[in-house]
Amino acid sequence: MKDPTPQRPAAVRIGVINVSDRASAGVYEDTPGKACVALLLEWLSTPFDVDYKVVADEQPLIEAEMRRMADLAGCCVIVTTGGTGPSPRDVTPEATAAVCDKLLPGFGELMRSASLAFVPTAILSRQTAGIRKRTLIVNLPGRPKAIRENLEAVFPAIPYCVDLIGGPRLETNESLMKVYRPKG
Amino acid sequence: MKDPTPQRPAAVRIGVINVSDRASAGVYEDTPGKACVALLLEWLSTPFDVDYKVVADEQPLIEAEMRRMADLAGCCVIVTTGGTGPSPRDVTPEATAAVCDKLLPGFGELMRSASLAFVPTAILSRQTAGIRKRTLIVNLPGRPKAIRENLEAVFPAIPYCVDLIGGPRLETNESLMKVYRPKG
Amino acid sequence: MKDPTPQRPAAVRIGVINVSDRASAGVYEDTPGKACVALLLEWLSTPFDVDYKVVADEQPLIEAEMRRMADLAGCCVIVTTGGTGPSPRDVTPEATAAVCDKLLPGFGELMRSASLAFVPTAILSRQTAGIRKRTLIVNLPGRPKAIRENLEAVFPAIPYCVDLIGGPRLETNESLMKVYRPKG
Repeated sequence: MKDPTPQRPAAVRIGVINVSDRASAGVYEDTPGKACVALLLEWLSTPFDVDYKVVADEQPLIEAEMRRMADLAGCCVIVTTGGTGPSPRDVTPEATAAVCDKLLPGFGELMRSASLAFVPTAILSRQTAGIRKRTLIVNLPGRPKAIRENLEAVFPAIPYCVDLIGGPRLETNESLMKVYRPKG
Repeated sequence: MKDPTPQRPAAVRIGVINVSDRASAGVYEDTPGKACVALLLEWLSTPFDVDYKVVADEQPLIEAEMRRMADLAGCCVIVTTGGTGPSPRDVTPEATAAVCDKLLPGFGELMRSASLAFVPTAILSRQTAGIRKRTLIVNLPGRPKAIRENLEAVFPAIPYCVDLIGGPRLETNESLMKVYRPKG
Repeated sequence: MKDPTPQRPAAVRIGVINVSDRASAGVYEDTPGKACVALLLEWLSTPFDVDYKVVADEQPLIEAEMRRMADLAGCCVIVTTGGTGPSPRDVTPEATAAVCDKLLPGFGELMRSASLAFVPTAILSRQTAGIRKRTLIVNLPGRPKAIRENLEAVFPAIPYCVDLIGGPRLETNESLMKVYRPKG
């Protein structure tokens, strides 16, 4: 069997946006964004390309990246990390709401509920998710430990959501991440 | 005792809207709408009339039916089934938000939470509930099994909600569906 | 040690708004507002002043009190009680949304979830929370028993939230109310 493509061909693209003033200024290492990519590589068996950006906590910049990744780069999923708290600079949920055609409140509810098992301050996260045309956008928190707890909670529903909006079929390493697709 | 009225007199009206392109085109049988009616007949002991419609997934059509059932037909409760997912044609929550004076986010939260006990894709449902003047509107999912799970979760609060918005007193068959009214 | 200030100096201010047509007309005693103050005195060890108002269920009046307490009186936290249900006169969540820069949906979700352990009608509460500049506003229900259940559920996250928006450091009587502040 001849396969001229690299090990992870460009068939499927997933966007990762690390929203952080300090990481975008190079003051902090970009740990949260890398944690997102590591989880996607761990769970997804479908080969994918990562479209990766670090941006400051500025709503127009975050929106522009989301639009580019969804409309031009053709990402079926975009995950963001950071910028979901109550601080004045936290505007990732606002950017998400602004670019999405419809919001999916169940993602935020379940992620906060999952985080509450660990920290009572989980209710301070305003993270949400939504659909922009054929792209699912999911906000994750900024701390690597919380990123895993949150993405683990909602990931089983993501491949079917991507099916419903006309995206590519995403398969996972079933022993590490079991997804669910209703029959019929 | 003389009772000139039929067994289920017109004193109380409840609307049921099945939102489905395929059911409205006659391609699918209207199972979800009938499942809603069957549950209401099972649980409510108060006699009621059903105002029943099947409409396509078109926001203006859904809104028009909700307005007619609430304002002209005088329904105290309207339940919808279908159209709550992330697909481009799913617009029932948008129609509900557009016609309601106030939304009741607790309904959607509890229904998604109840469904999560069965399927992880419960978070993809954007179903909500709200008040239009003296009418409570509740979105239900489209699958008959999920309809029961969801309506069962929120029904205990519905009669008191109808009390609060000035509607008729709804009583239930207590052995099948126990409702709650705070004292005082 | 010389301390010229009274036992509870004006360093920290907390607003309490009892939203009730009947209490504002003097028909009912103002039990819910007093219950809020009693809980704050029980849990907070940091001295604070209370800015206390009883207002009718009129959105412009509620908004005006929230703006005054936040912008002029410098309250770091405002709690409201009452006006969160589905009745036509219940408009406290609308007033809160109108004056806030950002909403914190996790507060309403957790409070409804906590109340659901006691009454199925918890889903009828539309209570929310949000940030206006440097002030956290939290809606509580109107019944004293429910006020405690609800504020108890979210209070562990409030001091850290106030930290994040640049407010004063709030400390609690740890044996009665344990709060959480993430490290780093």
